[in-house]
Amino acid sequence: MISVTGLESTVMNASMTSADYRALTRPSGARHVDVIDQRALPHALTTLRIDSTTAAADAIRDMIVRGAPLIGAVGAYGLALSLDADPSDAALARAHALLDAARPTAVNLRWALDRVRARVQPLVPENRAAAAWDEADAIRAEDIEINSAIGRHGLDGLRALPRRKDGVLNVMTHCNAGALATCGFGTATAPLFLAHAEGLPLHVFVSETRPRLQGANLTAWELAQHGIPHTLFVDSASGLLMRRGDVDAVIVGADRVAANGDVCNKIGTYGKALAAADNDVPFYAAVPSPTFDFALASGEAIPIEARDAEEVLSVSGSDSRAMPAALRLAPPGTRAVNYAFDITPARLVAGLVTERGIASATQAGIRAMFPERGT
Amino acid sequence: MISVTGLESTVMNASMTSADYRALTRPSGARHVDVIDQRALPHALTTLRIDSTTAAADAIRDMIVRGAPLIGAVGAYGLALSLDADPSDAALARAHALLDAARPTAVNLRWALDRVRARVQPLVPENRAAAAWDEADAIRAEDIEINSAIGRHGLDGLRALPRRKDGVLNVMTHCNAGALATCGFGTATAPLFLAHAEGLPLHVFVSETRPRLQGANLTAWELAQHGIPHTLFVDSASGLLMRRGDVDAVIVGADRVAANGDVCNKIGTYGKALAAADNDVPFYAAVPSPTFDFALASGEAIPIEARDAEEVLSVSGSDSRAMPAALRLAPPGTRAVNYAFDITPARLVAGLVTERGIASATQAGIRAMFPERGT
Repeated sequence: MISVTGLESTVMNASMTSADYRALTRPSGARHVDVIDQRALPHALTTLRIDSTTAAADAIRDMIVRGAPLIGAVGAYGLALSLDADPSDAALARAHALLDAARPTAVNLRWALDRVRARVQPLVPENRAAAAWDEADAIRAEDIEINSAIGRHGLDGLRALPRRKDGVLNVMTHCNAGALATCGFGTATAPLFLAHAEGLPLHVFVSETRPRLQGANLTAWELAQHGIPHTLFVDSASGLLMRRGDVDAVIVGADRVAANGDVCNKIGTYGKALAAADNDVPFYAAVPSPTFDFALASGEAIPIEARDAEEVLSVSGSDSRAMPAALRLAPPGTRAVNYAFDITPARLVAGLVTERGIASATQAGIRAMFPERGT
Repeated sequence: MISVTGLESTVMNASMTSADYRALTRPSGARHVDVIDQRALPHALTTLRIDSTTAAADAIRDMIVRGAPLIGAVGAYGLALSLDADPSDAALARAHALLDAARPTAVNLRWALDRVRARVQPLVPENRAAAAWDEADAIRAEDIEINSAIGRHGLDGLRALPRRKDGVLNVMTHCNAGALATCGFGTATAPLFLAHAEGLPLHVFVSETRPRLQGANLTAWELAQHGIPHTLFVDSASGLLMRRGDVDAVIVGADRVAANGDVCNKIGTYGKALAAADNDVPFYAAVPSPTFDFALASGEAIPIEARDAEEVLSVSGSDSRAMPAALRLAPPGTRAVNYAFDITPARLVAGLVTERGIASATQAGIRAMFPERGT
């Protein structure tokens, strides 16, 4: 279903230093998309071809691609692929349901699927596929623009912050809300890439993000590609680092933000927000507009994905020959729980960095930023 | 230096179910002690013999033994071993310094070394070794008694708590403050073992405790030995679990507690205390009296051990043949920081479970519990 690309296939040295990578590309005119296999990083930079709806759903479910904006775009292309094969109403409904079920928490997936469906539904079947590809391309192009705008607004915010140590701006992030989570330069990382490009002295604290280690495997890799100084730490250390005065700001991504500003994001985000509040460190979430769920009054109703306990009971890394490998942790028979996300109450959030500016994490603040989506 | 014991050597099946294990034993009359090699758990239950001061210092530094009360006892025996070899003042001073430098944060080590030194210093050299062995035995015996008393007082506290779900008492712990951290039944785990023995319906949430995974490797193993239901989770999930109402109480150990009640314990403790406070979950630390540093006004002055970054950049577990193995995480060249402890402010602590009862985490509360140590 997911074939390694032929001529376009690129297995590069993943430790090369270059910021020239894209999580998702569509070769001009192609009826497929190529994605970076994020399970293989940082060991290898491998591109996989997605050329069917099933392949798109598998890629989302198996976390070959992850990150709320990126799975939205992959979902949109998945619907376009379905319409290539069968443009009927019934096939459209089946494909929408299949893709929508791939992951439950990030609202971008449903948003993108609904958007493509709304575009093609009024059309006669023979015109649907082309319109779906066009709409998916638009979603991707808009995501790239949104990333850039979040970067500019976020940078304005970060630039204004006092720097506690040696004039260097020390920013903590969690999981990966980088280029690998989007079609462009990332959400939480966009201001960081811009800050570094503009010569602002910057250092990033990267939490490893158990169980799947997206911080260690993806964010550390991305920062290295850009040449940005960074330090890895275990998730448990965020509180001490803030208490030591080592952190000037926290910025994370989001999988869904409720109308009141509650932020659903990778498990562990809530703890970092609590530590930030206890140490007067401003805590920001970078939130593209498609990540808002304007229909949801608060974060309590957001469905939290419970993934396989095996992710907690084991860990992946590279062995002594630098080959990918996995180990089991804990005694045999141990039971584990694996919630993938948590909810950070809006009261702990200093601001939501959107493509239109930094909104306060309140219903009024969000409504003022997006009046046309008024709830 | 550290030899696998000969006839006494026991490599047992570490997954056996029996609570019959002791972190430290001294065979009757022997001039050595046997300790469980905690680096090998949960894969193997191996006993190592400590028969020299250097071996004792190595065992503490390399975390063959760990846990504040246990490293205190091993330090005391290390001093006795030194006096067997050379009872002079100069040798005593050298051994004290060597052992004291093995790990900086837990105050029990310095406390035990000072106690043995104070006992032997007034004696003529030829009487010193016997007195040191006697004093080390006393420290070990007292630790066992302290564990039992903490268990009784802690159980009284836990029994009084409302149970949020199905009548089961759900307790969260962090790292390992179990039998493996002490000479007896543990500090934080002592009330849990007692509760289970008395038939209280109990379930324990065990945080894996990166980077060294003492929760996954040691606490999960200990709870399994006792047949206590438990669930492993990644350190980042503590906040969500509390927010879901899954946790009735948190109880952890301590490496040093200041006179004002600030608790220094394994990295990540502070974050759990913040989440507990934000969700009205009582947060307890189990603190034997030797873990108090009555001379220290607050936790800010406690030295925080920074360990090798390699512990963060790699992870240990068992491979597909159930053999111990390690993997590297993060891209090559990644920098990491590895603080082993953090400070939980007293304001977040519901109570300090000591061998005399549960003290409030305030200077007045601690002073009232230990008036003879008044600061």
